[in-house]
Amino acid sequence: MQTDWQRMQTAVVTLFAVLVLNLSSGDAVSPVQGTHSIGVRSIRPVSILDRTSCRLNGKPSRYAVETSQRLERLRQEMRNYYISAYIVSSGDEHQSEYIANHDKRREYISGFSGSAGDAVITLEKAALWTDSRYYIQADNQLDCNWLLMKNGVVGVPSIREWITAELGRGNNVSADPKIISYTDWISWNSSFASSGITLKLITDNLVDKIWGENQGREPYSDAEIIVHDMAYAGVSWQDKLTTVRSVMSEQDADVLVVTALDEIAWALNLRGEDVPYTPVFRSYLIIGHSYATLYLPKYKITKPIKDHLNIHDIDSAKTVKVKLYDEFWNDLSSMPKTVKKILLPSPMSYAKGVSYYVYHLLPAKKVSFTPSPLLTMKDIKNDIEAEGMRNAHIRDAIPVCQILRKLEEGIDNEVWDELRVATTVDELRKKQVLNRGPSFSTIAAFGPNAALPHYVPTQDTNLKINASSVFMLDSGGQYLDGTTDVTRTIHLGVPTDFQIKIYTALLKGCIDLVTARFPEGQTLSKLEVLIREPLYYEGLDYGHGSTHGIGAFLGVHEAFNTTYHKNFFGSQEPGYYESNNFGMRLENIVTVVSANLTYQGKEFFTFEPVTLVPYERKLINISDLTPHQLQWLNDYHQKIRELVGEEMNRQDLGEDRLWLLDKTEPLSPSSS
Amino acid sequence: MQTDWQRMQTAVVTLFAVLVLNLSSGDAVSPVQGTHSIGVRSIRPVSILDRTSCRLNGKPSRYAVETSQRLERLRQEMRNYYISAYIVSSGDEHQSEYIANHDKRREYISGFSGSAGDAVITLEKAALWTDSRYYIQADNQLDCNWLLMKNGVVGVPSIREWITAELGRGNNVSADPKIISYTDWISWNSSFASSGITLKLITDNLVDKIWGENQGREPYSDAEIIVHDMAYAGVSWQDKLTTVRSVMSEQDADVLVVTALDEIAWALNLRGEDVPYTPVFRSYLIIGHSYATLYLPKYKITKPIKDHLNIHDIDSAKTVKVKLYDEFWNDLSSMPKTVKKILLPSPMSYAKGVSYYVYHLLPAKKVSFTPSPLLTMKDIKNDIEAEGMRNAHIRDAIPVCQILRKLEEGIDNEVWDELRVATTVDELRKKQVLNRGPSFSTIAAFGPNAALPHYVPTQDTNLKINASSVFMLDSGGQYLDGTTDVTRTIHLGVPTDFQIKIYTALLKGCIDLVTARFPEGQTLSKLEVLIREPLYYEGLDYGHGSTHGIGAFLGVHEAFNTTYHKNFFGSQEPGYYESNNFGMRLENIVTVVSANLTYQGKEFFTFEPVTLVPYERKLINISDLTPHQLQWLNDYHQKIRELVGEEMNRQDLGEDRLWLLDKTEPLSPSSS
Repeated sequence: MQTDWQRMQTAVVTLFAVLVLNLSSGDAVSPVQGTHSIGVRSIRPVSILDRTSCRLNGKPSRYAVETSQRLERLRQEMRNYYISAYIVSSGDEHQSEYIANHDKRREYISGFSGSAGDAVITLEKAALWTDSRYYIQADNQLDCNWLLMKNGVVGVPSIREWITAELGRGNNVSADPKIISYTDWISWNSSFASSGITLKLITDNLVDKIWGENQGREPYSDAEIIVHDMAYAGVSWQDKLTTVRSVMSEQDADVLVVTALDEIAWALNLRGEDVPYTPVFRSYLIIGHSYATLYLPKYKITKPIKDHLNIHDIDSAKTVKVKLYDEFWNDLSSMPKTVKKILLPSPMSYAKGVSYYVYHLLPAKKVSFTPSPLLTMKDIKNDIEAEGMRNAHIRDAIPVCQILRKLEEGIDNEVWDELRVATTVDELRKKQVLNRGPSFSTIAAFGPNAALPHYVPTQDTNLKINASSVFMLDSGGQYLDGTTDVTRTIHLGVPTDFQIKIYTALLKGCIDLVTARFPEGQTLSKLEVLIREPLYYEGLDYGHGSTHGIGAFLGVHEAFNTTYHKNFFGSQEPGYYESNNFGMRLENIVTVVSANLTYQGKEFFTFEPVTLVPYERKLINISDLTPHQLQWLNDYHQKIRELVGEEMNRQDLGEDRLWLLDKTEPLSPSSS
Repeated sequence: MQTDWQRMQTAVVTLFAVLVLNLSSGDAVSPVQGTHSIGVRSIRPVSILDRTSCRLNGKPSRYAVETSQRLERLRQEMRNYYISAYIVSSGDEHQSEYIANHDKRREYISGFSGSAGDAVITLEKAALWTDSRYYIQADNQLDCNWLLMKNGVVGVPSIREWITAELGRGNNVSADPKIISYTDWISWNSSFASSGITLKLITDNLVDKIWGENQGREPYSDAEIIVHDMAYAGVSWQDKLTTVRSVMSEQDADVLVVTALDEIAWALNLRGEDVPYTPVFRSYLIIGHSYATLYLPKYKITKPIKDHLNIHDIDSAKTVKVKLYDEFWNDLSSMPKTVKKILLPSPMSYAKGVSYYVYHLLPAKKVSFTPSPLLTMKDIKNDIEAEGMRNAHIRDAIPVCQILRKLEEGIDNEVWDELRVATTVDELRKKQVLNRGPSFSTIAAFGPNAALPHYVPTQDTNLKINASSVFMLDSGGQYLDGTTDVTRTIHLGVPTDFQIKIYTALLKGCIDLVTARFPEGQTLSKLEVLIREPLYYEGLDYGHGSTHGIGAFLGVHEAFNTTYHKNFFGSQEPGYYESNNFGMRLENIVTVVSANLTYQGKEFFTFEPVTLVPYERKLINISDLTPHQLQWLNDYHQKIRELVGEEMNRQDLGEDRLWLLDKTEPLSPSSS
């Protein structure tokens, strides 16, 4: 599936993404009502009259959340702290991609529940920034206290620009320094300073002061932390700590502070259920050479966890001490004066690095920023994890095949809509052993909805699926032995020649990249043209990246080292999106394996597909494939037939297997 | 052809190049005689006993140049200036790739005449650094005063490392600040400073003090500067200055200082013969908004030049004032105090930017470094230049076809060696209209010599060409309407299957890149994998870049913007080099043209081959080409047949045309 980060992988792609947003949202933009300029970019004042719902009859939509009281209470807190503007971002203390309901502060204060958005509240105004996929939802959910700032629309001010224009010099702005990353905070601080505005550090989160259980705030999950079995983890936490400590030694570092939940879960072979989609638990971890301390909420500190972490061992280097979650901050600020060098994770790929507050509590001279050693270790799956990933993908192919079969066979007799598909595929996944739910919110998108790369069906947008256009399904599962993510596009009727041409170009790109061989040291950005070129050749492109990393029973979007290395696991996913008409995407998880070739001392690598779901035969123009591409496709289908077919047999899914056999028949130039 | 700069285009490629050098020169390295370490890299003392020629009988080879007296006189100058080490690099005041004999100071002081090398003289020792292609030549030409420092051999110290080890703290080192680029000087300065050594600025070149006409020093060329006709230049110098001035305005700059000879020649539509291979003349140029001044040696200031530059026009903005070459330095240092911002060219691609001395004479606060606007303007050929380039390549194909035909038809009856081929192809080019000599020293390389990417035949290395291996010819011409550069590899006997496989892989790469379509904004480094992938697929690679820019009757290696744009002209040249066996390279000049496709407001481009020389049919495995690749190859040969065939007809070259018809017959899968 797609993520915001992918859109920003390269300047070129970003530029393109912005263009897409501009064009696709052009109709929704109100006439310019006069502009003023900051720097060279011309920005325009955004008014409440830009809100479609508030403009029509002066009233918000029936979906809107009443926020007047919340805002007034927040403003009272702001006055108490001498703050003229407060920024409420999506996010938690661990810079997680998916966050607990308890942490959805931006949703509480604004009413807008989309996954991406930032709210800014001044003493007089309130404004919410979000991107094109959420323009309509935001307009529906925001009451008429809120300005809607459409990211990507020309002339719409950035958060910094708007705050600067609203606040005079000498005013204060603030945000939660535990939620804002160090890098963002530093950048905001200097840009506000250049406008005479102070980014004031306030430890208390002002939304937390007005949002409690009385206001319906959901507590954090009390789900137990579970030990991740060595049969899946492959390497003990003791061995992982030994490796981290040797990396720390190479960097002359005494301490590593870990705040990213997936890194903690991976390092200690523990898993949880504290946020949606990613099996992690709220915690902090401090690793020294002769000790390590895990900080957990009290009710999560159970005997199995304590036993797993050997807390009673006499050798402190062989145990992980467990302390209370909130003690982290005290321990951090009182970190022994004998410590000379403290490593703090810096941003890398999807990982945002530590919060500003972590940095703030430490003596700056002792801090050294570096991509987390745990991130780079985790990025190279060990052989047990790699095997688990392969096994999970064999089982995961079954629910995907099953839902595709249901659609094909049921389309004329039953009513299928996007939401029903999404619900069904999640249920089918649950029937697979070791499944622990979906790895992200399923994207089931028909026709024009498939033209929105980040679309997730809701009651408002839900379309019936029929034979008139393409249907795209992007979904994945969490399994104890691995995480999956697969996208297939099908057509239940007769595709147009253009749709066939596009699908074939996407498939050719997937094959050209996955079959590439390359010497060590090659990067994602150097090889990526191989997947885009067939679409480029038609004069077309897509506005997102082509690859994200993926965890082993961890994050579906995992930070990774963009220089390819053995046992990297990640996606390859080209797409095409035609506004208001249709969209297509093909996504496989692949891994990097040795090509068993060496030249001048350099090992050569290639990719191996891990996802095992057949392609849509009626969308392939076989005569447009090279013999090499056709051979790969037939070999791939044969591999699916063997591995998934065998698993279907084992699960006694005879009818699904018949469907699979049909879908994996060898193709030949004469079959098109 | 290949250049040093190409080898450094990417870290990956550089690393690989170093590896190649290490391996190929392994035999020539003496046993390690104890090492010492600077930083993490282990370096070893290099002794005179490492010199093969000096070791054998304590005497240099018969080719060696006696340098004892030169060195003693230089050391006397060094003592006068309190200098303990003096660096003599190849190069001139204009950071030219090819330099006048008058400027070959490194050759004079050391005796070594290769194109790449740096000499360092201390009060006791002398050492020369060069790369693997020159190890043997340097050992032959250096007398026993000289240590030979083999760049690329593990453990050989860098210039900085060696000087640091030889000189104690508190000593001075120097070099000519007019020859050393600003960037190199600054970098040397800080690295020497960290070792307590001072890089002392001495305006006088110490070699010039001991090398005069009495010592056989050749004067600079007195060849006349000629006006480059608008029929070839396409845009008047007046219009070019108008454009440069508008770029200067955008950057709020008052003055642009131009020191690169090709930029001056291009800007003013003038050409000369002051250095080999590139039609430029020694000069400096200062461009202000209301004036421009060209600095020339007195004997080059002729009436046609003065007329061309409108020196009598009353409006100073419409003239280029001409002053004496040496007055440049005074004018620079006395640049009016009203000037607020002076643009100095920074390095970009092949262009090294201004010398340190130019910077040194200016108030640092008023200097702004930027890639030269002239470089980026020149990089986008205008339509007249583009047409000239195409025309020049049609004519230039003829001498290349003629020499290939001579080899094929004469090989059994006549003796052909590499030098004879090189001489002959140069002579054949001279017969073409508008030819002004070769654009670089012809690479004619048979069998094992072809395995050296930078090989140029000499009397010492000259091999006879026969039917037992491949022959590679990399050559180019200067024409009033364009500059050419083409490489073809042929086999005069029966190639091995492996040679066919390699040639086919190189050809497939050329076709995949040249036929690629891509949206604006794509870079060389993002597309380059397309040309390498077929060779990668075989587990092989080459240790140099794939592309250099090329001038229009200017430098064969022209600096360029690596983001592709319309009317870029440059090379596409993959290769394969197997030490002591054979080497292959295929090089076409191509240009970027519109693909006549637009998507989301972005124009798509593709490449068009400009070089028009047939490929070697017996080295192509046709069944390994995709239908698309075969179609391109046949279309390309058809285009050659039409354009070059027509020109051969015009030149009454009936027999050459018959050869061409044979070489451009359509290929089909059954013909292999």
